[in-house]
Amino acid sequence: METITIATAKQLKERFLNVRSQTSKLTKPLKPEDYVVQPVVDVSPPKWHLAHTTWFFEQFVLLNFDKDYCVYDKDYSYLFNSYYETVGTRVLRADRGNLTRPGTHEIMKYRTYVDEGMCAFFDQNEELEDNVCKIIELGLQHEQQHQELLVTDIKYILGHNPLFPVYKENLQNTNGVSQVIGGEYKEIDEGVYSIGHADDDFHFDNEKGRHKVYLHAFRYLNRLITNGEYLEFIEAGGYQDFRYWFMEAWEWVKTEGINAPLYWFKIENDWYHYKLSGFQKVDLYEPVTHISMFEADAFANWKGKRLLTEFEWEVACKQGSPQINKNANFVETEHYHPITRQKEDSQLFGDTWEWTGSAYQPYPYYQRAEGALGEYNGKFMINQKVLRGGSCATPADHIRHTYRNFFHPHLRWQFTGIRLAESI
Amino acid sequence: METITIATAKQLKERFLNVRSQTSKLTKPLKPEDYVVQPVVDVSPPKWHLAHTTWFFEQFVLLNFDKDYCVYDKDYSYLFNSYYETVGTRVLRADRGNLTRPGTHEIMKYRTYVDEGMCAFFDQNEELEDNVCKIIELGLQHEQQHQELLVTDIKYILGHNPLFPVYKENLQNTNGVSQVIGGEYKEIDEGVYSIGHADDDFHFDNEKGRHKVYLHAFRYLNRLITNGEYLEFIEAGGYQDFRYWFMEAWEWVKTEGINAPLYWFKIENDWYHYKLSGFQKVDLYEPVTHISMFEADAFANWKGKRLLTEFEWEVACKQGSPQINKNANFVETEHYHPITRQKEDSQLFGDTWEWTGSAYQPYPYYQRAEGALGEYNGKFMINQKVLRGGSCATPADHIRHTYRNFFHPHLRWQFTGIRLAESI
Amino acid sequence: METITIATAKQLKERFLNVRSQTSKLTKPLKPEDYVVQPVVDVSPPKWHLAHTTWFFEQFVLLNFDKDYCVYDKDYSYLFNSYYETVGTRVLRADRGNLTRPGTHEIMKYRTYVDEGMCAFFDQNEELEDNVCKIIELGLQHEQQHQELLVTDIKYILGHNPLFPVYKENLQNTNGVSQVIGGEYKEIDEGVYSIGHADDDFHFDNEKGRHKVYLHAFRYLNRLITNGEYLEFIEAGGYQDFRYWFMEAWEWVKTEGINAPLYWFKIENDWYHYKLSGFQKVDLYEPVTHISMFEADAFANWKGKRLLTEFEWEVACKQGSPQINKNANFVETEHYHPITRQKEDSQLFGDTWEWTGSAYQPYPYYQRAEGALGEYNGKFMINQKVLRGGSCATPADHIRHTYRNFFHPHLRWQFTGIRLAESI
Amino acid sequence: METITIATAKQLKERFLNVRSQTSKLTKPLKPEDYVVQPVVDVSPPKWHLAHTTWFFEQFVLLNFDKDYCVYDKDYSYLFNSYYETVGTRVLRADRGNLTRPGTHEIMKYRTYVDEGMCAFFDQNEELEDNVCKIIELGLQHEQQHQELLVTDIKYILGHNPLFPVYKENLQNTNGVSQVIGGEYKEIDEGVYSIGHADDDFHFDNEKGRHKVYLHAFRYLNRLITNGEYLEFIEAGGYQDFRYWFMEAWEWVKTEGINAPLYWFKIENDWYHYKLSGFQKVDLYEPVTHISMFEADAFANWKGKRLLTEFEWEVACKQGSPQINKNANFVETEHYHPITRQKEDSQLFGDTWEWTGSAYQPYPYYQRAEGALGEYNGKFMINQKVLRGGSCATPADHIRHTYRNFFHPHLRWQFTGIRLAESI
Repeated sequence: METITIATAKQLKERFLNVRSQTSKLTKPLKPEDYVVQPVVDVSPPKWHLAHTTWFFEQFVLLNFDKDYCVYDKDYSYLFNSYYETVGTRVLRADRGNLTRPGTHEIMKYRTYVDEGMCAFFDQNEELEDNVCKIIELGLQHEQQHQELLVTDIKYILGHNPLFPVYKENLQNTNGVSQVIGGEYKEIDEGVYSIGHADDDFHFDNEKGRHKVYLHAFRYLNRLITNGEYLEFIEAGGYQDFRYWFMEAWEWVKTEGINAPLYWFKIENDWYHYKLSGFQKVDLYEPVTHISMFEADAFANWKGKRLLTEFEWEVACKQGSPQINKNANFVETEHYHPITRQKEDSQLFGDTWEWTGSAYQPYPYYQRAEGALGEYNGKFMINQKVLRGGSCATPADHIRHTYRNFFHPHLRWQFTGIRLAESI
Repeated sequence: METITIATAKQLKERFLNVRSQTSKLTKPLKPEDYVVQPVVDVSPPKWHLAHTTWFFEQFVLLNFDKDYCVYDKDYSYLFNSYYETVGTRVLRADRGNLTRPGTHEIMKYRTYVDEGMCAFFDQNEELEDNVCKIIELGLQHEQQHQELLVTDIKYILGHNPLFPVYKENLQNTNGVSQVIGGEYKEIDEGVYSIGHADDDFHFDNEKGRHKVYLHAFRYLNRLITNGEYLEFIEAGGYQDFRYWFMEAWEWVKTEGINAPLYWFKIENDWYHYKLSGFQKVDLYEPVTHISMFEADAFANWKGKRLLTEFEWEVACKQGSPQINKNANFVETEHYHPITRQKEDSQLFGDTWEWTGSAYQPYPYYQRAEGALGEYNGKFMINQKVLRGGSCATPADHIRHTYRNFFHPHLRWQFTGIRLAESI
Repeated sequence: METITIATAKQLKERFLNVRSQTSKLTKPLKPEDYVVQPVVDVSPPKWHLAHTTWFFEQFVLLNFDKDYCVYDKDYSYLFNSYYETVGTRVLRADRGNLTRPGTHEIMKYRTYVDEGMCAFFDQNEELEDNVCKIIELGLQHEQQHQELLVTDIKYILGHNPLFPVYKENLQNTNGVSQVIGGEYKEIDEGVYSIGHADDDFHFDNEKGRHKVYLHAFRYLNRLITNGEYLEFIEAGGYQDFRYWFMEAWEWVKTEGINAPLYWFKIENDWYHYKLSGFQKVDLYEPVTHISMFEADAFANWKGKRLLTEFEWEVACKQGSPQINKNANFVETEHYHPITRQKEDSQLFGDTWEWTGSAYQPYPYYQRAEGALGEYNGKFMINQKVLRGGSCATPADHIRHTYRNFFHPHLRWQFTGIRLAESI
Repeated sequence: METITIATAKQLKERFLNVRSQTSKLTKPLKPEDYVVQPVVDVSPPKWHLAHTTWFFEQFVLLNFDKDYCVYDKDYSYLFNSYYETVGTRVLRADRGNLTRPGTHEIMKYRTYVDEGMCAFFDQNEELEDNVCKIIELGLQHEQQHQELLVTDIKYILGHNPLFPVYKENLQNTNGVSQVIGGEYKEIDEGVYSIGHADDDFHFDNEKGRHKVYLHAFRYLNRLITNGEYLEFIEAGGYQDFRYWFMEAWEWVKTEGINAPLYWFKIENDWYHYKLSGFQKVDLYEPVTHISMFEADAFANWKGKRLLTEFEWEVACKQGSPQINKNANFVETEHYHPITRQKEDSQLFGDTWEWTGSAYQPYPYYQRAEGALGEYNGKFMINQKVLRGGSCATPADHIRHTYRNFFHPHLRWQFTGIRLAESI
């Protein structure tokens, strides 16, 4: 993170309480048992998210800057650390789902205790030093990342239960639209472009370092690929033809028996999928989601197109949507699923994260921060692919043109989607 | 199971209600989260035990014999079946711990519903046909088996939590004894003996078939091996000397890094272990428990002795304790841990299951029952070892001289112990 | 091993040379590359067998008893030890197949060197002490065990090559018989019987300890099960019906996709299999072979019969074939495959090892020998099943009524077969 | 590959024979057994390399363009295909090491047969069509790639044998130098540069597509990192400090127990390693080799530097060594190991492949070729890192400034090394 400007502690306190209450709101529909499990290593138990985000403020704010603060429980540092190797021994990720204690009720008490500690801290300090503000803001951005994971992890837990429980009824997903709107390709000229975050407002270390890249001319589709288009790929035998796939992707398809996006089920001749509003027939006009980068790349190959690079995406987005579209389908819409394209929008923000063809690598002047917070991003810069633009599970004030998300190319539990491009 | 004599439906109803309420009682100390998880494949979530035992009565009694009964939820048969392959598709055992729905509250409603169904069934039928009684009794015995698993699975879940939660405070375990009492060897003569269950009262199919075996003369120790004796083995380097171990056991010791019983931890120079009453220093006079058959056998080899065969144990028990000692340390004592030997008792019943050297194989005239209940025991008669005598987690009215328990030789989460013997 | 009577060193030398040359003879049909590989952990490279059997005589005879002997190469003890943990560090079994050096040519020189050393040793000592004779005899029996493994490991190596190379042409297997002869059941009376090796001639430690067992009356089929009978099981859906299988066996069938004996292939509507004489159509009258104990047991369940216990087999064999039938189909016939039953023979000896239902466990007075040779058998007495009678790969003078072979119940690369029995 | 200019068939025939005989030469020091094994999945048996490279000419040249050609053995297409999914069913890579037949002798006959076929084909056609020339040239380049793999795979096979056999005696590796020469950093200016292959001579599809990149200013060390420098990293605890490692790299270090380059062994206080000239003490002035990209990156982090990107490397190389240095330490020197830096050279060519920080991704205008040859490179463009410059196992006429090699970042069996750089 970099310099941020926060006028007063009071304003930061307000933002703090908003973010924290949004986290609680997301867990409201859960039953006590839903908080506990970790079905696969990439998914964390909801109660762990609740505790881990809280631990961040205790560990990096209160214990560092509030000399009166008493630690809630010294074991929690051990239990709710994630991958920060500099802060004591960590619990192996895969074991999180077996830790029934402390229970959710106890964790809620922990949240309240730390929230009260933070409020007292805000109240005692009319002005906060810049570095304190920065760490608090990092904690809030960190919590927003976990809000997104909460949504996707809850979906994984409920979506792998044979009862397919509903998280929220009556989600309006299809937007009443009955055809695919748009489909034009927009062109970007060859030239030298600036990439990376330039201003002083919040951003992560991985997007810092304004620098130049040379782009050759290209064009990109002004909407996401739909379920209907993806079904054509399935029906054309795309999952059975090795020519469209990376060699590792092809092994994955065969070993895992992949033949459709995650959460899709074919029942007799119709395709259904699990959404957070329940088990439903696939809507052909909604953007396809829960596909791996392997699938996105294979689809593009089949179409004779390709994915954008992350640099192309950033340049296209700065031109096509110079302001962040705060009304896009972010988590605040409470659709919890990508929706059919609106006329006026290229879907660059929200709906689904867009897989790019770019490996996640450091920018030219990237330097890892010192200390525990330095572990934030650099250590992941291997074997992952960059995603851009945010999804229907992303908070609207968490995303930026320069925001770089990243996952391993086989993962599918995030709301991920496809945008096509080609060189000119 | 075989012929059983139940005087009236009223008596059976009373027994039914007793067994069912004991199950509920065992889960009282749990928090909501404890009911959900499955840390390893051998352990099942407590809420699954609650549902599965209930499903047995619904599936095999009410749906078969009560024409008025309405099934509670047709999905439950799919969710709470265990290994009965004849009753529809089953949920893979390893996935049980990811099923957060139905939640415990819902399962408790299911229990109440089925209990009411059973009570109505008892009330409507003054006399029950013999085969109905038999199936109900099998269901109750089945539930008692799961009561034992509930205790050991709860211990596994809590004992693998770094907070080491207490299940029940102030358990009196050491019995105030400060020395090992006893240690004589008792002799049994060479000869032909009868093995297996003879009477008409309840027994499992695996113990049926009274038959003759020839035993050569042997002697056995009249108590279980203590923690103190086992510590001598540890300190003598028993876990580092391949000569005492089966080849497979030696691979297991090295691969898993085994160097003490399950739940034992060395802190500086002292050994501690987790008991259901909390994390405590190891008491030297209590019987050692939570050891695999591999460890029991290695200990015996180190001592120059051996384990009993299951036939020797049965003959020894019939002679040494002709009546089942109902006052032994079974689950009703609520110690939930083996206790130091009482003067008057050879510890043949209760405290710990005793690993025998016998592979679990069918008796000469063994025949699998037809249908789903036929899957009960025969399919496990490979690569397992017989244990005898019951443990501190076994209901007192569930055990018999002829009762054959069985587990794979590397497993340790049951209350298992060691008795030494030798040929004469 | 026990007391053996060898009249003179000269006689023992002659036997030594015979056994050693038989080993060489078995490898004659191999190409240089065939000596090297280890396709699965249970199979060893032929050149390893050649070296390991030689190392036995160097390590346990020449280095112990011949003070003039110079070790051939000190590295060989490390390379060619098998599982004798007391003799230095061992090479992990799974790595054997990657050791290209020393090459076969070098190992042949090693064999010659040790053979010459042994001959010199025989020539220098007109009389050998009893314990020396015993160890030499153990070495020869050990080499004969490896002769059998050579045949089965060579078959595995060649039989997993898509070219299906021929080991020996024109093996007469079917014996010109075109129907199944025999099929009567023979009865054995209830009573106390003596089991185990009684005399002073050579035997392994696991068969020592004459002792009594009580057998209930039973009957057994006087021939092995044929390919034709096994095909009926296949065609009746035996591999698709869980009711016939142990639970572990059923997992194995599904996980491994087992649907026929090892080396069997269905081409259009006909079954073929690989024999050491090449790829051929399955002969319906030959004994079925290369089946696991899981399959033998499932077949017996399907037939409503069972396998013999090892004690029943030993009693049946002592009665039915009081003398070892040296003319049975042992390795000396050079059929290298079981052959159709001859009228006069119950096939108790030779053709295929017969899976028994008995777990491999120690006899009542069993004691492990001290030192390296003590590792011989006792350490394997867990999770294995006993096989009896020898096979078409066994040397005729290596088998006995009391001989106990043992393998894990899922293994199939030995010449294993089925005999049915039932209690009366 | 692209347009190539071959004056006459006679010249191409001469080149063909040269490349083919170099392959044979590399296998001369092997014993028959060395040709067979595949110790890990990345290593192929030498005899497989011999056959596979031959199969290329049979499959893609003779069968396509010589109507008189008779296939040598139709099974060979199945056996010696590698990953060309369009040409029939393939042998799984991991099974290659178990195929003892056809033996090396037979494969040599196959080589001779195809060589004769190719010679006849050259002799019959004075002029070859351009597309035929291209495929033959691709086959020769393909064979040169396998020559490099032959060297590294042979090293892996011999270097994992406890006898550490010598491949070639008396290799002069240290060049008589007893100090590190050089160490200056060379600067490259910021600007737009052209990347990729421009001319018509041979190149692979992955380097095709001349395009522009923007580079910020940087400097790079004018030699490779030495064993001595790497030892400082080891002794400073570099393998024990997570801060220098990617998260995946750190898991790899801990899981695999990595603490030094491949082939290194610490004996008492000294470090030794296996070279193709035998087991020797580590020379401090030679370039370090057999390290993964994970280790290269961690070393650079520890030094406060970074690796070059592949684009920086290409620009640096075109400036620093405008002509390919044919006298660099390529396979023709027969050192088979990197040597100490020569004064006049920046070691950009030869000695070791240099790990870059760049993920292996397609160039802007990359298009997969149609048909089997189209599988050549594109399918690997995921989760791999680019290496540049060739090694001591690379043929001198096989490398180019634009040549892109690629491996997974954890692999170490190639001759890989480290060059440091930093942004200015």
